[in-house]
Amino acid sequence: MRTLEGGVTAPKGFRAAGVAVGIKAEGGKKDCALVVSHRLASLAGAFTTNLMKAAPVKWTEAVCRWGKARAVFINSGNANSCTGPQGERDVVETAQRVAQAIQARAEEICVCSTGVIGVSLPMGRVLAGVDACAKGLSNRGSRDAAEAIMTTDTRPKERAIETSFGASLGGIAKGAGMIAPSLAPPPATMIAVITTDAVVEPGPLAEALSRAVTVSFNRICVDNDTSTNDTVLCLANGQAGGPTLAPGMAEYVEFEESLTQLCQGLAKDMVEDGEGATKFVEIVVEGAGSVADAEKVARAVGQSQLCKTAFFGQDPNWGRIACAVGYAGVPFEPVALAIWLEDIQLVSKGAPTAYDEKEAAARMELAQFQIRIRIGEGAGSAVFWTTDLSHDYVTLNAHYRS
Amino acid sequence: MRTLEGGVTAPKGFRAAGVAVGIKAEGGKKDCALVVSHRLASLAGAFTTNLMKAAPVKWTEAVCRWGKARAVFINSGNANSCTGPQGERDVVETAQRVAQAIQARAEEICVCSTGVIGVSLPMGRVLAGVDACAKGLSNRGSRDAAEAIMTTDTRPKERAIETSFGASLGGIAKGAGMIAPSLAPPPATMIAVITTDAVVEPGPLAEALSRAVTVSFNRICVDNDTSTNDTVLCLANGQAGGPTLAPGMAEYVEFEESLTQLCQGLAKDMVEDGEGATKFVEIVVEGAGSVADAEKVARAVGQSQLCKTAFFGQDPNWGRIACAVGYAGVPFEPVALAIWLEDIQLVSKGAPTAYDEKEAAARMELAQFQIRIRIGEGAGSAVFWTTDLSHDYVTLNAHYRS
Repeated sequence: MRTLEGGVTAPKGFRAAGVAVGIKAEGGKKDCALVVSHRLASLAGAFTTNLMKAAPVKWTEAVCRWGKARAVFINSGNANSCTGPQGERDVVETAQRVAQAIQARAEEICVCSTGVIGVSLPMGRVLAGVDACAKGLSNRGSRDAAEAIMTTDTRPKERAIETSFGASLGGIAKGAGMIAPSLAPPPATMIAVITTDAVVEPGPLAEALSRAVTVSFNRICVDNDTSTNDTVLCLANGQAGGPTLAPGMAEYVEFEESLTQLCQGLAKDMVEDGEGATKFVEIVVEGAGSVADAEKVARAVGQSQLCKTAFFGQDPNWGRIACAVGYAGVPFEPVALAIWLEDIQLVSKGAPTAYDEKEAAARMELAQFQIRIRIGEGAGSAVFWTTDLSHDYVTLNAHYRS
Repeated sequence: MRTLEGGVTAPKGFRAAGVAVGIKAEGGKKDCALVVSHRLASLAGAFTTNLMKAAPVKWTEAVCRWGKARAVFINSGNANSCTGPQGERDVVETAQRVAQAIQARAEEICVCSTGVIGVSLPMGRVLAGVDACAKGLSNRGSRDAAEAIMTTDTRPKERAIETSFGASLGGIAKGAGMIAPSLAPPPATMIAVITTDAVVEPGPLAEALSRAVTVSFNRICVDNDTSTNDTVLCLANGQAGGPTLAPGMAEYVEFEESLTQLCQGLAKDMVEDGEGATKFVEIVVEGAGSVADAEKVARAVGQSQLCKTAFFGQDPNWGRIACAVGYAGVPFEPVALAIWLEDIQLVSKGAPTAYDEKEAAARMELAQFQIRIRIGEGAGSAVFWTTDLSHDYVTLNAHYRS
């Protein structure tokens, strides 16, 4: 397993493009992306659990049920969410135009949107975007696509990995706010498109993706809001050749490990670029009765407004951490609680240690630090990644119309 | 039913005091309060559901199980939370000192603390505070007590009501941050002490208090953090005379209505004085399948960081409201969703109306406004009160050590 350049166009048989057609208010910023597989690919997806699902999410879930796709079209600047029947028609029209442009069927086209909620898509521009993307497709187009899906992101997010058995995986993602993914089968408006040339059928692909999403996109938050548009898609076109990957095979295990690593990398990229974020904080919870319990505790701390403002203030305020652990809804013995900030133990047996306050504060001056929490002797553990809550977050969201 | 002056000392047979003994870092600010009933009173309470319960919470829960009390002693500036066995011993010593000073038994003394977590109480000062309070008790001492329990509060909170049958109820409360009460029997560090001279046994008193708390303190949030110290106490000393109130009696119904009104008044006072708050927002949810479902939806909107920053920005960003409704975990038909901002309907049938954006924004310039959400045709409805999320909230909590 080694990292590669090239994002979604690193695997064989994938081309991508990103263009600007004026959907975004800020003139000249790219806002349409297209990722196309040369062959019909196995498809797996994970979608927001928000009941106010945007029209493109409902369409793409249906494509996923079929399990095969040729392409993913994404526009930024408009979420096509809460747009009624018009929104549904717009998705169909978009898929049809993509299908026409790349000689596929509409049912083989995934469509994603991200941006403002409740405004109908400017379809003239969207269709122009489809055409321009189709003309600009390139096997080096991943960066353009990654740029075109950005909203409040400050930088594009792309990663790629090569497995030891010759297959590759690539991904692009966006997401900086409305990030508290809760994907099912388990993630903000975050959107991630993963490509691979591995040979894998839709079923085993969906299983591997579901497990990877559970420990990556579903383990992050920027705020506590789960978007109406969260989507993770994985297309496997088999162009690397070799055996068909299936559970029980060493190659499948490595494939899933690679997929998990790719998803975690992209998820962490989102947190690092979170709205207003000045800190990247890793929360590790250990000693819980189950992974689910550990995750609940980690999420309570990672989503706590008081913990997040303390992270911003670089204040080793373990009392707020202990408080969040206490209301997480997971049973534990308060006297068993232990908390570490990096290498410094702040709390032991439910009470503060004689740690050096200045030394602890110094650890929090780092751009990235870890909080480790032990709540008992159970085998359940989980890792969660979060940001701080800063003035820039408030400024950005008091006025940005999402 | 009519409102009175006098807070906890409005009902007959109650005295109170508030003094400064240097527990708070800021010199000269009152930090010890004592409320004393002339007679042994019926006692009911509601306490935080946080598992990291502070030592005074555990002690006072035990007093509540007995159902009788003479007094409530409260210190601010230190929460006596996460303080191990020393914290437990300090509570007992405090109760004993109060008992000695007012000629009662230690088991009849409720003890509450609020302030910094994880630092042992300065017992010399606390005991001096008990003595000074006991000496200063007055039937006009409510305001001093209300001032002495403040932490980040900017003003004292006290209310009183007189019933038509001659009994009175009074209350003091504190709480401006770490406010997302989840009390059981159903509330931040919020602390409220309610007194009444009604004649009512502990059982019926507990029932009425539980129902009142459910629709008052448990319907508010400032942040999303449920404190380790939340406590609501109600002492009924019977000194108004008259019949013993019991379920089925008209007087009991009026008593409960008065208690509910008092609790809602104090709960709203907390939200209005919430940390950094520039807005008081009432969230009304209607048409849900049950009250519990309606409350869940109202809470999701009221706790959403993105909704709260939009409130601060005075941006009628109904998309974020619809998004929060969608992830609340309550089933509904998205096409049934309707949203009003004061008298302006923003969303109908799941999609935006042709409302006037400027007119809507003007409604949000008010210090107080209402968001009404209808999710179907069910009979379940709930009201929830919340603040905005402002720069002052971030500034305050990045540095205040709670």
